[in-house]
Amino acid sequence: MIKNDLFLKALKGETVTRPPVWMMRQAGRHLPEFMEIKEKYDFFTRCRTPELASEITVQPIRRYGMDAAILFSDILVIPQAMNIEVEMKPNFGPYLPNPVRDQKGVDATIVPDVNDALGYVMDAIKMTKEKLNGEIPLIGFAGSPWTILCYTTQGQGSKNFDKAKEFCFTQPETAHQMLQKITDTTIAYLIAKVKAGVDAVQIFDSWGGMLSPTDYNEFSLQYIDQIVTALKDYAPVIVFGKGCWFALNDMAKSGASALGVDWTCSARNARYLSGGNITLQGNFDPSRLLSPPEKIREMVHQMIREFGKDKYIVNLGHGMLPNIPVENAMAFVKAVKEYKD
Amino acid sequence: MIKNDLFLKALKGETVTRPPVWMMRQAGRHLPEFMEIKEKYDFFTRCRTPELASEITVQPIRRYGMDAAILFSDILVIPQAMNIEVEMKPNFGPYLPNPVRDQKGVDATIVPDVNDALGYVMDAIKMTKEKLNGEIPLIGFAGSPWTILCYTTQGQGSKNFDKAKEFCFTQPETAHQMLQKITDTTIAYLIAKVKAGVDAVQIFDSWGGMLSPTDYNEFSLQYIDQIVTALKDYAPVIVFGKGCWFALNDMAKSGASALGVDWTCSARNARYLSGGNITLQGNFDPSRLLSPPEKIREMVHQMIREFGKDKYIVNLGHGMLPNIPVENAMAFVKAVKEYKD
Repeated sequence: MIKNDLFLKALKGETVTRPPVWMMRQAGRHLPEFMEIKEKYDFFTRCRTPELASEITVQPIRRYGMDAAILFSDILVIPQAMNIEVEMKPNFGPYLPNPVRDQKGVDATIVPDVNDALGYVMDAIKMTKEKLNGEIPLIGFAGSPWTILCYTTQGQGSKNFDKAKEFCFTQPETAHQMLQKITDTTIAYLIAKVKAGVDAVQIFDSWGGMLSPTDYNEFSLQYIDQIVTALKDYAPVIVFGKGCWFALNDMAKSGASALGVDWTCSARNARYLSGGNITLQGNFDPSRLLSPPEKIREMVHQMIREFGKDKYIVNLGHGMLPNIPVENAMAFVKAVKEYKD
Repeated sequence: MIKNDLFLKALKGETVTRPPVWMMRQAGRHLPEFMEIKEKYDFFTRCRTPELASEITVQPIRRYGMDAAILFSDILVIPQAMNIEVEMKPNFGPYLPNPVRDQKGVDATIVPDVNDALGYVMDAIKMTKEKLNGEIPLIGFAGSPWTILCYTTQGQGSKNFDKAKEFCFTQPETAHQMLQKITDTTIAYLIAKVKAGVDAVQIFDSWGGMLSPTDYNEFSLQYIDQIVTALKDYAPVIVFGKGCWFALNDMAKSGASALGVDWTCSARNARYLSGGNITLQGNFDPSRLLSPPEKIREMVHQMIREFGKDKYIVNLGHGMLPNIPVENAMAFVKAVKEYKD
């Protein structure tokens, strides 16, 4: 049993005294205690060392007291486990020296035994659960297959992931084979994470908003649907698609427990587009955390009034930015805890 | 009188035999004849030399036969005219060495005499009109004040224009002064362009989709509204906001003749959100021009069926990409011309 069950109640759609709060990318670059660890260990060492990953996971909880923790890791551990080389270059981001852009490349990838290839994640989950000591739930996550393919094909971050789209639009059959291999790996990975102890999972479709609705259904949503269908009997699933307002209606039918929305989608539009019944999560503009704390407080209260306190999880509309002052992040969490209907 | 008036009729909402077609950024990098000019002259020389700008403007018309030309220029000629230094760095994009981030910076900018500072644009318009010889209309354009501020504050392109947002969110009064100065310059500039001969104008809000609906109304739409109000008695105005689906309803009330939409907004959603009565322009995913020509043809016909042939201008959902083969761009234009209800 978890003492603070606000987050799990919201995922079930149960009435709460106030909505739960956590922040996407709450662990990491904006925290001074994280920067100390970062100076000593490189990116994948931090992900692969359970002592470090669990410590980084609980750092924001100690400082701010969110209602859920999210395991420190990266969506690109999946392509790594599939035998694709992934580097994390300082001041550049992910770099994949051998991007997958043809049948030969797809054939060279594997669907790994996740407990073998990603056992370090399961160890980090067990250690984090011990540190959390039953106080709050722990979230595990994965990228959507489309978002993973964006990186495995493009080979790095991009404004428009044109090479990934070119791959899908000129070699659709090969691209679908790749998406299916990523999907199979992701399903096994997320089930293993639940078995290791996470209480809910979130799928990040960070680049779904690059696709037209028709292409989204073909290259992204059908694979997310497979993951939700395979996972929903193990743990509640949250689907977050950045820029994917147009897919909220279909996502609401996937069996997910909640949908994430970004800040371009107002509460009213999000409730309307998602059918009005599913739990929603979001959607504070991370850049708005640069506003003065008093303004943040006022905007958070307004946001809760607009979404309503039930079937709602307070969050940002995308990941935390590195240049947010800790007192501003604190104002965000505190404003939720102070909220009264 | 202009011989091919399909584009102007669509802007008036009149019935047409087929919808008109043009492509955002149709002049430029994907054309071999443009690349020849590019090798000889740098970016601002091309913009500032009427012979070059007019030649580049008509190049795609000669090759593809669109129903409208758009003057070759850049949205950053506005900050340049306001006394802000703008460089165009090869393989990097715009670079503004002295970004405007405080009151002192705003005070140092001017609202110029546009015929003086931007006379070269007016000359390019007159020369282009001669070359077009009354065959098709010529479009003039400007960036939205918010999109211009993104560059003048950030100083370069960005994934999230965090510095521009920080300026607006921490120094809103100063930011509004800057937005008003850009607006005043843009209004004078676009009126001068119409007087020099353009038949319609388009406002590009390329980065409007970075803002929440509330922030959009405050930092972008109110300035676009000012421009539309000032221009609409001079020429038809098209407003295109990338990622601005959430603002279509308000934009439709601005007095604009047409609204541009990107490919994440389906025809059905665009008609619904814009109120169903205004002319719409868009929205083919530029990356989809990488598909085989036969597939492009099929998708264009499907797009016209979904938008309907009237009150519709066929276009891309954002600018042309440099890596599009000319035969694919040709397939796009040809598919529209072949369209039969």
